[in-house]
Amino acid sequence: MKLATIRTRGTTAAVRVDGDAAVETGDLDVGALLARPDWREHAATADGARHPLGDLDFAPVVPRPQKIFCVGLNYRSHITEMGRDIPQYPTVFAKFPAVLIGANDTLVLPAASQAVDWEGELAVVIGSRVRNVEAEDAAGFIAGYAVLNDVTARDWQHRTREWLQGKVFEATTPFGPYLVTSDETDGSDLRLVTEVDGETVQQAVTGDLVFDAAALVAYLSTIITLEPGDVIATGTPGGVGNARKPPRFLEDGSVLTTRIEGLGEARNHCVREKTDAA
Amino acid sequence: MKLATIRTRGTTAAVRVDGDAAVETGDLDVGALLARPDWREHAATADGARHPLGDLDFAPVVPRPQKIFCVGLNYRSHITEMGRDIPQYPTVFAKFPAVLIGANDTLVLPAASQAVDWEGELAVVIGSRVRNVEAEDAAGFIAGYAVLNDVTARDWQHRTREWLQGKVFEATTPFGPYLVTSDETDGSDLRLVTEVDGETVQQAVTGDLVFDAAALVAYLSTIITLEPGDVIATGTPGGVGNARKPPRFLEDGSVLTTRIEGLGEARNHCVREKTDAA
Repeated sequence: MKLATIRTRGTTAAVRVDGDAAVETGDLDVGALLARPDWREHAATADGARHPLGDLDFAPVVPRPQKIFCVGLNYRSHITEMGRDIPQYPTVFAKFPAVLIGANDTLVLPAASQAVDWEGELAVVIGSRVRNVEAEDAAGFIAGYAVLNDVTARDWQHRTREWLQGKVFEATTPFGPYLVTSDETDGSDLRLVTEVDGETVQQAVTGDLVFDAAALVAYLSTIITLEPGDVIATGTPGGVGNARKPPRFLEDGSVLTTRIEGLGEARNHCVREKTDAA
Repeated sequence: MKLATIRTRGTTAAVRVDGDAAVETGDLDVGALLARPDWREHAATADGARHPLGDLDFAPVVPRPQKIFCVGLNYRSHITEMGRDIPQYPTVFAKFPAVLIGANDTLVLPAASQAVDWEGELAVVIGSRVRNVEAEDAAGFIAGYAVLNDVTARDWQHRTREWLQGKVFEATTPFGPYLVTSDETDGSDLRLVTEVDGETVQQAVTGDLVFDAAALVAYLSTIITLEPGDVIATGTPGGVGNARKPPRFLEDGSVLTTRIEGLGEARNHCVREKTDAA
């Protein structure tokens, strides 16, 4: 089952994406849908207003998660090619909901940064409340998986020793188009591809994660209660622009495509922010 | 004007704290109050249900901020005593709303950490929506100032190069009792004191900040729109337990008091989390 949040009638609506149409579930967005204890059955049997697939205007899958965790340094091949040791613990930072955009939204490159880079990632969406769960029991608390691109202002990321300020420029993180529920995939061994202007810049399989979805849910649930709609972005593989020689960044007019096998693709047109001075 | 969120009748209520009583404003909490464009006048003239001051059960001042920013390395005297250079940019990380507790709530020390430390701080609360503001114009967007203690699990903070995981243990960050509005103080040159079991462990004046409230509002507003109720914790001075020889941490039964002149005090009794094994 594919679940998405679309913009319609001046608001948003959660939909089940079927083969030829999207069917409204009656909820404001996928976050509100997942807050229902019976969300799986409710979504599967929903029979609300229908939308042709070609007309969908995707909002972020969950527009306002209570928590967004992001993981750094999590692809094994990338860590070893960098000559680093496999870490004992996941490196974790946060994003805010206002950072998210939909799968086909324009990505406005902030005027304040000259080094906006891509980080294609697999995102895990929590399906029910959980605290202190073991990894072997964690899968049952996952609603599903989606595409996310942890777009990063490298110059701001590296201004200080904490990455956050390079990670939370407003409306710069594509998330979607939809999540695929955990009964259809466990998120492992999916092929992830990031393209800039049609050229492949990152490719990996999600099975190469050091800390997989279940391990991350377990780890983070030791710290804080995970709630329905919470998001864990699982980290990016090699191939980011900052590591290239010379470095390469997103430019005015770039098209950033982030695709994961079975989870669809985000395709975001980049536009340089205009300032008063320009 | 002092504004607080109290727990009453099984829910919460925003109140104006007067000399002898707290008066309800008709809003669910201070976050909802600040979302009103006319919040200053609305709060000043509110005449709802009254509560004797001694009976107040304080929730976090803003229980569910859209964003909580925290700043590291911001007290000049502490930076220089550590032999470091004054930084060019603020070091910024995040917290989640579920981390916050009220000014007199029990502080449960997580079973997973053996090194829970104090960080008394001045918190800035945003009063109206702002993006891309200059520091000289930033004061008008600040609702007020409050006490916060950025309680930190040092062992988890230093597991990886990002601090977040040591900063977001559930229900470990005292915030309050109330905010004092920006017409009564600009948050500078207030005396901050942290005590453990009545012993002073941190003391500073907020005028020693490298990046003051206005500078932080301006800096962060370059990155993302600040919304009413958003919180910026401005960093802690010297005297944390981790820097002592030997290190000293909060223990079962410790009483943590965080006080800022004019802004009241949070007084939190620490209790070690019980585990199934205990």
